[in-house]
Amino acid sequence: MTDLLTRTIAAITPLDADAMRAAEARQLQLTKPPKALGRLETLSIQLAGIQGKAQPVIESKAIAVMAADHGVTAEGVSAFPAEVTPGMVFNFAAGGAAINVIGRHVGARVLVTDVGVNADLSAAEGVRQKKVRMGTANMAQEPAMTREQAVRAIEIGIELVEEELGKGLDIIATGEMGIGNTTAASAVIAALTGEPAATVTGRGTGISAAALPAKVAVIEKALAVNQPDAADAIDVLAKVGGLEIAAMTGVFLGGAAHRIPVVMDGFISAAAALAAVRLCHECVDYILPSHVSIEIGHQVVLDELGLVPLFDLQMRLGEGTGAALSMSIIEAAARILSEMATFESAGVAGDPSDADAELTR
Amino acid sequence: MTDLLTRTIAAITPLDADAMRAAEARQLQLTKPPKALGRLETLSIQLAGIQGKAQPVIESKAIAVMAADHGVTAEGVSAFPAEVTPGMVFNFAAGGAAINVIGRHVGARVLVTDVGVNADLSAAEGVRQKKVRMGTANMAQEPAMTREQAVRAIEIGIELVEEELGKGLDIIATGEMGIGNTTAASAVIAALTGEPAATVTGRGTGISAAALPAKVAVIEKALAVNQPDAADAIDVLAKVGGLEIAAMTGVFLGGAAHRIPVVMDGFISAAAALAAVRLCHECVDYILPSHVSIEIGHQVVLDELGLVPLFDLQMRLGEGTGAALSMSIIEAAARILSEMATFESAGVAGDPSDADAELTR
Repeated sequence: MTDLLTRTIAAITPLDADAMRAAEARQLQLTKPPKALGRLETLSIQLAGIQGKAQPVIESKAIAVMAADHGVTAEGVSAFPAEVTPGMVFNFAAGGAAINVIGRHVGARVLVTDVGVNADLSAAEGVRQKKVRMGTANMAQEPAMTREQAVRAIEIGIELVEEELGKGLDIIATGEMGIGNTTAASAVIAALTGEPAATVTGRGTGISAAALPAKVAVIEKALAVNQPDAADAIDVLAKVGGLEIAAMTGVFLGGAAHRIPVVMDGFISAAAALAAVRLCHECVDYILPSHVSIEIGHQVVLDELGLVPLFDLQMRLGEGTGAALSMSIIEAAARILSEMATFESAGVAGDPSDADAELTR
Repeated sequence: MTDLLTRTIAAITPLDADAMRAAEARQLQLTKPPKALGRLETLSIQLAGIQGKAQPVIESKAIAVMAADHGVTAEGVSAFPAEVTPGMVFNFAAGGAAINVIGRHVGARVLVTDVGVNADLSAAEGVRQKKVRMGTANMAQEPAMTREQAVRAIEIGIELVEEELGKGLDIIATGEMGIGNTTAASAVIAALTGEPAATVTGRGTGISAAALPAKVAVIEKALAVNQPDAADAIDVLAKVGGLEIAAMTGVFLGGAAHRIPVVMDGFISAAAALAAVRLCHECVDYILPSHVSIEIGHQVVLDELGLVPLFDLQMRLGEGTGAALSMSIIEAAARILSEMATFESAGVAGDPSDADAELTR
């Protein structure tokens, strides 16, 4: 590993228990029955532990959209042509994509990075130019990239977090664009979990049900040809992953190292998160799940990481859209903890200890 | 019925099919795989049908918090004393409650109405003074209120919508405050659905598991003493309901009559929504579900109305908190439809008709 990656992983520590205790105590003083705000309360306590503040702040928000291409599209695994990747990067730059709309809506800046799109994107205004290579190789025939390239892509994600710290960064979401990347994500998840490819592979942007077995077969072939080492997440990312997936792994690690909550988006983000947790187990506490996508492999990763999504809106777009949407809920959780009156300050009667907080449905 | 109520019910018509078709057609042109935004897309189409606009607008937002007291608290059905109701109304007025925080967060104005709090609230600044009576009577012994009072409370909800129209109103959420109102809501739902009280009664703000059978028995007694007519929702609201529940029923009806989407909050809001739909079946298309609360009866009503909540965050506070939180998602759905680029405008390749939109998990 390089210095940056080694140093980042070493910097990831457990959540701040004192801040969490203080946040939990304050929740019990707020003008509501104890625990009546459910997951908003536990979320606020986790945010306190991540940021190391009894009253965490979620104001400065960013969405990291990592873009790259996939040589495996030569196998016909996607309903859309590979040219859509650069086309969508220009769409991001112009502010016309779904992630731009949701980013504006939740007040988060959208940071688009070319980690490896197979086209010249130098004319795409505002796009961070960090191309490692012109897309991956076709993993059904050879490794998607070298180990050094995978590490470099991870570093690009870490560097993004570090660059943004100076501008103010309270939370960051992962997002991506890359035609063919559900195929790579399925391969990464199958390799890291040992699940059969068929269990973690879905229809992506919308291939037909009839085309799904061929997609599964391509993933099985990629795993057989490359023999990724399940105990070495970098090896897995290099052989059957993607440049944008590795870059998102870097965002998860960089966020955790700098005590910034990282919101996981959909299926591709989940593959990146799983790789990050395999590189550093403590990283998992810094990952906030957002939604669960239609892709069947997403739930497999959520279960593996012990994460419960905030909502299920049957989304399957990627780009960071689900994660960005969830930022409104996460910000609300933080604001409630800081801004609500306490029983004492509001002069409201009623000892909250009268009520039983341990309710379940 | 009075003129206002009769006129309001008569004004509720089916959704605008032309606007919905136009919205659906536009969704297919946006730069994403067809239906990849899942429920955000169906929500935008419903909003189009409600507002009668191909591109619906969710900007001016309001949360109607209806407050009232319940004579049935004399039976010991709540973990909190009845004095908490006026205390919380002052907290709303001062901006310190959870609904104030979430309202500010989503950019919605919080409109607090005293429909029947058992205390003098004339000093509560900004609270709409519409007291019908000083709380309901104890429904375990007599009708909670007269039929005329129930109708008056419904009208207060309708009038609220009509007053706000002039200030700009694109969406309204229901919320409430009233110690004892889970008891009334359970009674209303049991009466309207025929479900046994035990099936629709939970632990409210947090009574102990041991105290739950006594709460169920109180509801059973109220139903036996008053014999509400399941075919007459006003009779049910009057005999075993609450003033704030009836007022929220008015908000649902008034919203539907004026083509304003009404967001349903938790369990108490659900009881009001069910009564509104029993008074006018078409009203259901104007109701947007938000969350599902811990109270077991909430899911019963969602099923009865055919509504699927947007999220389940284990909330059980009321006040409109879940509905207000969901406004961010609903607004995002509308903005996506209007603000996203189309494949043509963005110059992105790829015919979306190549992709199969009918994906499920």
